[in-house]
Amino acid sequence: MFHHVKELQFNARVSKPDVRFAKLLLEQFGGPNGELKAAMQYFVQAFGCRKPHPDKYDMLMDIATEEFSHLEIVGATIQMLLTGVNGELKNAADESDLTKVLDGKTAKETYIHEAMINPHFFIVSGGTPTLTDSVGNPWSANYIMGMGDLTADLRLNIGAETSAKMVYENLMKFTDDVYVKESLRYLMTREVAHFQMFQAALDSIQPNFPPGILQSDPKYSNKYFNMSKGEDFKGDWNEGKSPLLGEEWQYIDDPLQHVRDTDGLLDERAKGTPRTEESVQTANKKLSAKRKALVDNATAPKNGVMSWSVYEDEEKLKSTEKKENLTNHSINN
Amino acid sequence: MFHHVKELQFNARVSKPDVRFAKLLLEQFGGPNGELKAAMQYFVQAFGCRKPHPDKYDMLMDIATEEFSHLEIVGATIQMLLTGVNGELKNAADESDLTKVLDGKTAKETYIHEAMINPHFFIVSGGTPTLTDSVGNPWSANYIMGMGDLTADLRLNIGAETSAKMVYENLMKFTDDVYVKESLRYLMTREVAHFQMFQAALDSIQPNFPPGILQSDPKYSNKYFNMSKGEDFKGDWNEGKSPLLGEEWQYIDDPLQHVRDTDGLLDERAKGTPRTEESVQTANKKLSAKRKALVDNATAPKNGVMSWSVYEDEEKLKSTEKKENLTNHSINN
Amino acid sequence: MFHHVKELQFNARVSKPDVRFAKLLLEQFGGPNGELKAAMQYFVQAFGCRKPHPDKYDMLMDIATEEFSHLEIVGATIQMLLTGVNGELKNAADESDLTKVLDGKTAKETYIHEAMINPHFFIVSGGTPTLTDSVGNPWSANYIMGMGDLTADLRLNIGAETSAKMVYENLMKFTDDVYVKESLRYLMTREVAHFQMFQAALDSIQPNFPPGILQSDPKYSNKYFNMSKGEDFKGDWNEGKSPLLGEEWQYIDDPLQHVRDTDGLLDERAKGTPRTEESVQTANKKLSAKRKALVDNATAPKNGVMSWSVYEDEEKLKSTEKKENLTNHSINN
Amino acid sequence: MFHHVKELQFNARVSKPDVRFAKLLLEQFGGPNGELKAAMQYFVQAFGCRKPHPDKYDMLMDIATEEFSHLEIVGATIQMLLTGVNGELKNAADESDLTKVLDGKTAKETYIHEAMINPHFFIVSGGTPTLTDSVGNPWSANYIMGMGDLTADLRLNIGAETSAKMVYENLMKFTDDVYVKESLRYLMTREVAHFQMFQAALDSIQPNFPPGILQSDPKYSNKYFNMSKGEDFKGDWNEGKSPLLGEEWQYIDDPLQHVRDTDGLLDERAKGTPRTEESVQTANKKLSAKRKALVDNATAPKNGVMSWSVYEDEEKLKSTEKKENLTNHSINN
Amino acid sequence: MFHHVKELQFNARVSKPDVRFAKLLLEQFGGPNGELKAAMQYFVQAFGCRKPHPDKYDMLMDIATEEFSHLEIVGATIQMLLTGVNGELKNAADESDLTKVLDGKTAKETYIHEAMINPHFFIVSGGTPTLTDSVGNPWSANYIMGMGDLTADLRLNIGAETSAKMVYENLMKFTDDVYVKESLRYLMTREVAHFQMFQAALDSIQPNFPPGILQSDPKYSNKYFNMSKGEDFKGDWNEGKSPLLGEEWQYIDDPLQHVRDTDGLLDERAKGTPRTEESVQTANKKLSAKRKALVDNATAPKNGVMSWSVYEDEEKLKSTEKKENLTNHSINN
Amino acid sequence: MFHHVKELQFNARVSKPDVRFAKLLLEQFGGPNGELKAAMQYFVQAFGCRKPHPDKYDMLMDIATEEFSHLEIVGATIQMLLTGVNGELKNAADESDLTKVLDGKTAKETYIHEAMINPHFFIVSGGTPTLTDSVGNPWSANYIMGMGDLTADLRLNIGAETSAKMVYENLMKFTDDVYVKESLRYLMTREVAHFQMFQAALDSIQPNFPPGILQSDPKYSNKYFNMSKGEDFKGDWNEGKSPLLGEEWQYIDDPLQHVRDTDGLLDERAKGTPRTEESVQTANKKLSAKRKALVDNATAPKNGVMSWSVYEDEEKLKSTEKKENLTNHSINN
Repeated sequence: MFHHVKELQFNARVSKPDVRFAKLLLEQFGGPNGELKAAMQYFVQAFGCRKPHPDKYDMLMDIATEEFSHLEIVGATIQMLLTGVNGELKNAADESDLTKVLDGKTAKETYIHEAMINPHFFIVSGGTPTLTDSVGNPWSANYIMGMGDLTADLRLNIGAETSAKMVYENLMKFTDDVYVKESLRYLMTREVAHFQMFQAALDSIQPNFPPGILQSDPKYSNKYFNMSKGEDFKGDWNEGKSPLLGEEWQYIDDPLQHVRDTDGLLDERAKGTPRTEESVQTANKKLSAKRKALVDNATAPKNGVMSWSVYEDEEKLKSTEKKENLTNHSINN
Repeated sequence: MFHHVKELQFNARVSKPDVRFAKLLLEQFGGPNGELKAAMQYFVQAFGCRKPHPDKYDMLMDIATEEFSHLEIVGATIQMLLTGVNGELKNAADESDLTKVLDGKTAKETYIHEAMINPHFFIVSGGTPTLTDSVGNPWSANYIMGMGDLTADLRLNIGAETSAKMVYENLMKFTDDVYVKESLRYLMTREVAHFQMFQAALDSIQPNFPPGILQSDPKYSNKYFNMSKGEDFKGDWNEGKSPLLGEEWQYIDDPLQHVRDTDGLLDERAKGTPRTEESVQTANKKLSAKRKALVDNATAPKNGVMSWSVYEDEEKLKSTEKKENLTNHSINN
Repeated sequence: MFHHVKELQFNARVSKPDVRFAKLLLEQFGGPNGELKAAMQYFVQAFGCRKPHPDKYDMLMDIATEEFSHLEIVGATIQMLLTGVNGELKNAADESDLTKVLDGKTAKETYIHEAMINPHFFIVSGGTPTLTDSVGNPWSANYIMGMGDLTADLRLNIGAETSAKMVYENLMKFTDDVYVKESLRYLMTREVAHFQMFQAALDSIQPNFPPGILQSDPKYSNKYFNMSKGEDFKGDWNEGKSPLLGEEWQYIDDPLQHVRDTDGLLDERAKGTPRTEESVQTANKKLSAKRKALVDNATAPKNGVMSWSVYEDEEKLKSTEKKENLTNHSINN
Repeated sequence: MFHHVKELQFNARVSKPDVRFAKLLLEQFGGPNGELKAAMQYFVQAFGCRKPHPDKYDMLMDIATEEFSHLEIVGATIQMLLTGVNGELKNAADESDLTKVLDGKTAKETYIHEAMINPHFFIVSGGTPTLTDSVGNPWSANYIMGMGDLTADLRLNIGAETSAKMVYENLMKFTDDVYVKESLRYLMTREVAHFQMFQAALDSIQPNFPPGILQSDPKYSNKYFNMSKGEDFKGDWNEGKSPLLGEEWQYIDDPLQHVRDTDGLLDERAKGTPRTEESVQTANKKLSAKRKALVDNATAPKNGVMSWSVYEDEEKLKSTEKKENLTNHSINN
Repeated sequence: MFHHVKELQFNARVSKPDVRFAKLLLEQFGGPNGELKAAMQYFVQAFGCRKPHPDKYDMLMDIATEEFSHLEIVGATIQMLLTGVNGELKNAADESDLTKVLDGKTAKETYIHEAMINPHFFIVSGGTPTLTDSVGNPWSANYIMGMGDLTADLRLNIGAETSAKMVYENLMKFTDDVYVKESLRYLMTREVAHFQMFQAALDSIQPNFPPGILQSDPKYSNKYFNMSKGEDFKGDWNEGKSPLLGEEWQYIDDPLQHVRDTDGLLDERAKGTPRTEESVQTANKKLSAKRKALVDNATAPKNGVMSWSVYEDEEKLKSTEKKENLTNHSINN
Repeated sequence: MFHHVKELQFNARVSKPDVRFAKLLLEQFGGPNGELKAAMQYFVQAFGCRKPHPDKYDMLMDIATEEFSHLEIVGATIQMLLTGVNGELKNAADESDLTKVLDGKTAKETYIHEAMINPHFFIVSGGTPTLTDSVGNPWSANYIMGMGDLTADLRLNIGAETSAKMVYENLMKFTDDVYVKESLRYLMTREVAHFQMFQAALDSIQPNFPPGILQSDPKYSNKYFNMSKGEDFKGDWNEGKSPLLGEEWQYIDDPLQHVRDTDGLLDERAKGTPRTEESVQTANKKLSAKRKALVDNATAPKNGVMSWSVYEDEEKLKSTEKKENLTNHSINN
């Protein structure tokens, strides 16, 4: 259940209207790396965690709710940057009296020029934010991701925070308004904070590589195919040890010949790795059983009915118990 | 600023998993008439009201926040309906041990059949809701509307509540789960409640027809063009008085001839209406001035800076003053 | 079956080319509130009315066809505003001879600048309208709505007319061309006319609230949840009587506590309303039976075949009968 | 200006309801190769032809209007195939009395199963067609194309007719209803008819290859790059003469070596072609001048105003003159 | 299997940065008529040809791979046109030192103005191409088409080449950079070359009209409906013989009357054509059997397994055999 | 420049047709986590690296090209799974002879049932893959991301590999075909390999946190806001040290009160961190200068022209030099 208070989480302010920056800032209101994307991604992922991972659920909902609050900050800033637009549109009757809209400019020509910056502000939304990116693409749920597995979802969230941080960094170059910059810097910093929260949560789950349950096939996990010829380089990504499995990279310089030699890789063999098909199967079964049991135990219906919430007093009791259980759980997940 | 508490606004419960109904229910999670659409529509519209219409802002944010809370109810219900899917996916290693997923069914064939109902649940989201409609279309900001004018926005919101109500009504036919029906009925009823709130708010603004500022041209406002021939009918929509302006409908039986006779309607004349070009201009100017002043006064920067929030103690004081001012305001808006 | 005549319904004219206004006007050609949206929405809704509601079918097709005719007016105006673009693009060979494109401007720099206004006009559509909104989003069927129920659909149509009216009102501020303004005002006025037609049609159906068949649950239909704290206001939407059901609004000041006190609203009781569960069920059954019978009777196959049209002479006879039947029907629907 | 008559262009009939085929048939109602796509593509292209190419405008509007009429046939057929769905949804109150929906099936299980076929029909549109393809993707203006040049547009239209024909051919395999097949065969045949109309119109414009104005560069117009190795084939597309320019195909067996040898094709030379840079430039200039003049002359404003239509009597006179002029025009365009 | 070499197929060069032209050029990187569309369309179509039509598969993959290489040329050109953008964004810290970004311009105002041209370049992609069209619409698979039938697919590909050619032709008017023009002209020419390859391949398949298998119904294949009245014209598309079937066009001047007279065309009769229902059925069966056998024979599993590739030596042998078989095949397909 | 060889990178095989699994597998052909997404994401990111980061360019193009090759494997597998569909569609004429399509099933009912699984395969693509996900959403460039900064892009790529791995893991549960499983396991493993390559490349860039240039504000970088109440948990994400900056988490239990106490966080102070505003500014300037210089130096035009490729012999020389330079570069980037 959500609540709202009318004060913003951050005291967003604006010096003067600026339709151009309002347009750019839309990127973080309704764009693919923006606040709504983050809020909805964590909110949607959280449903699956509610029962089996209440600690991660708590974190995801804390951050999702903060992102909704940031969405409000961004929207409020855009609204203030658009001051004057709505009032001028209400001045619909008397065209001979076209007075200043923004920043002391007076001519109709200027007014039309402003409208070209983002027609939606002027002829559709009437001077309020639109749920689009900076060029007008409507927000799409294509932007949000979740795989029903925390070792995957937390990594996707790190990606989301990464790109959101970049957009704020870029945006700061396009305004001189110290108040607006102040808000942008706050918002950018919070992405850095969330990044670390997700990283810490990911680290608390072991094993967390590879994401999901199944191990990779040792025949193919450390091959590097040189598919782009000319100016070839070596680096830690194709020589030495792979960073997570610690296998020795195998550089395949001529992939076509290699593929032909191995009957389309069917005859490939594992090399440079201690892992075997047997060790893989063992690991798969062990992790599979453990994770399945965790989910099934937590979500099994009780007394023929499933419910989401326990209200009030029972709540407090249960919460205390849960926290104790969680200590192990986070370590072993 | 948003807050979240972990209890749902309504105690949503589910008897047993049901992937098929989970699929249908997605329509209200990520569909065009669903809870996210409503929540985001009112939330986005609210930005423009914050200063000039604080009472309507309060209402919009009350309802938007409730809709977010309903989105959570719908998502929680889908999650419970999908119980078993995530656990079974974790069972990734041991294929010979494919046990029951849902409802006592045991064979792989059945499992694959379930996956066909909505592949996203099984291979993408890992048994959690997806932000799509019931056939998998991603939620799109194309669904939300707002024109920066309350006489328009409130009507659009009535439309949103209307269609949301219909989908819940339809959904109820497709489940026998009494707990699920209970939640659906609650959610359907709230759409009816919100419908009336928006209607009341619209009625409190006078004049509210036509939406926006400008009056219609009396030459064209009461013409009915009979553009579809054969089985023509008369009704209150083309004979007698028009319901809002009270003009006499003029039925144009042969539009082509009429258009030719009037040089493409340029020679059209007003008929069946007391309104004149002069009365229209007067009304336009009056309303234009009034509404513009209201917005401009409320949004003008103070001391060279615009801010959104006043924190804490000042807040309480200001709120008291505002409410007094509002009494007139609602009447005169 | 559609027909076309080459004269426009309104004698649209343009003084001189204006690429910028052509861009803005696209909003009503291929935008979410534009003419195609309206035309297609009414056209699609009409299929379901053909048999059970021939009078509403007639009205929907009259208005849909007029909207197609308006789409043509908007497109023709854009085409005239783009005069010169296509010709200049044909001038593909001789770059040294780059002459004026639009409005007496001569330099290549100007030409490129024009192209930036809307690249689609210059490099894709070759100087013709594109089926997009003013920033280039392709028209999407996400814009159209219909629920298979006239008490819902007519309300959605009122919303569609509302937003279309607003966009025309806004557009008028961005052109000085008296001919273009003339067309815009005509088009704006027709939205006001259609609004009233839909309202009249809705009023002719009783009962029409709530939309659809099912009554709301009296336990939840008049509750107002104060979900957004700070600067709370009272108004007709949360105190006094609800405007359509006439129930007494119940203001819930602290929703969280209320939800906890009522076990997630499960223990909620009806208050401030004469409606009871029993009266609701009675109303549901009565309306359900009536509306179902109306539809089923009208759509039942005859002699093992369903057909859409009766051609020519039979047509005239049937039409006369139908009209007589309709008198009751409109009142009782 | 459009008109509508309530009779369909083709007497579409249906034997009995069939939700599954209704779903498939949506492909031609709101799908990328369907009737709306065709109608809108020709309608939008027509704007640019109105003045410079009145004969092609006439043809495009004739076919566009027929396609709208076909859209109506497809929609009517879907509506009839869905008979029963709307009535059953109106039966919202009495769940114990769930009677047959479609085809004599009676159980709720069956009803839910039907809903899975296309949830939109049951919970969103209430038993009417939706403007989507067969899997629910909303119709998008991405489907329509037009380049502002008849030698291009007519080819795109041939493509549109081609794919529409294929879908009808495929659809016929999925229904046994002789009435439905009858309609499908009519619709399929009309695509073949339109294909030939567009081909004839294209042939009447000379030169029409390449599309547009500019000639291709003889250095690169007849090279064939063998970019995919293994099982290479020769055919008329890479040996002998090219079908439209009549140049000798040059087969480049080792593109990488060739590119290196020619400094990235900068040093490429024309071979196997009589065309030269000079002949190309001459052709470009000639065609450029001719086509530009045609457009500019036809679209130039007269007396300081552009208009689209001439009403009534003047119309008839002008039409007679125009036709005489057209005789040359079609040949020389 | 794909390979990449780091040299471009064409030696693309750029004189100086130009954000505006970079924006326009996006149309061919991520737009509906651009290089990715072409590459993916042919690539996807090719799968179905692999077995039954290895010669056409070879051609489709040759051209698809060239289009991927052209996509790289376009992207490289955009990247060079954006030189300076990424570097300046890295200059994130020191705002007082805002130096020139592009083309010697120095002020922040100019920088912001540049950002308005395409905000994505500056705040999202950091100075690299985005996979959108020139106004920012994300590339969509809606752009690609394929019907599983070469007589249809090759025609669709001719359409694709047609529109791509037009966009390059238009683009050339908006840059003075001789190096960029050089690349554009190369790319435009290749579309003309591919057009002819597809035409030649289509011609090699007989019969290839109508596309697909089924013949058109002679009752409807040569009717021309005069659906748009006023200024009607005659031309090869509605009088004389139809260009592909050679039937006599039947001009229906008053479609409504005609439809009424024929009971909705049910009573229509073939006229002006030697084709009969019997000849149509014979042709259908013959072609159906031939094409089905070709596909089925080529795709039947062998020894209980289907495979895509034969590696290395067997490959060479098989290829030789195949080519011999193809000689007939191309002629008779 | 790309090349293609007709052998697949992996010898994909299929036992027997399976339309259902073909539908599921579409998720990795045209879905948001699939092969095309990966290929295009790395390909597009690579443009910006070409000059300043040739080693990362090499890696990105190696992996992008491998992903295109995987796209081909997935498409080939779908094509084989659809064996029979195209042949049966060619059997268009003789309906009385409807023979088996797939897996020995013979009745028309079965055939229609198959079509319901994915109508696109049967009525649109004619038995070839479609560029959509498993429920038919067209592939969209919304899926690809790139920020013009390697410390961001490589993290986004790790996210891409993560989700692709998960989908393959999930898919394996839905087929019994050992050949298909073999291919899926190979493809899944390669995602794990690529994950590690991107991680290694990221590690080779120092500093790489936070992504981009700008440091976070120490006032806000280590605050944890408890925005979701009830069942609150502590973990490494809100107590102890943050994992990347090593700051002490500050847990804000009552965010509303905190925000009010700090005037909307304006009065917030850094706590639990050694970082200061001064240290932040120093770090910003240093990194800013370094990264800007790297990009600017690498991309500056030479001799008034920018080019992308050096062909042939010069190439080899340059490559040798570059590699030497890269040793430092990778360390210092």
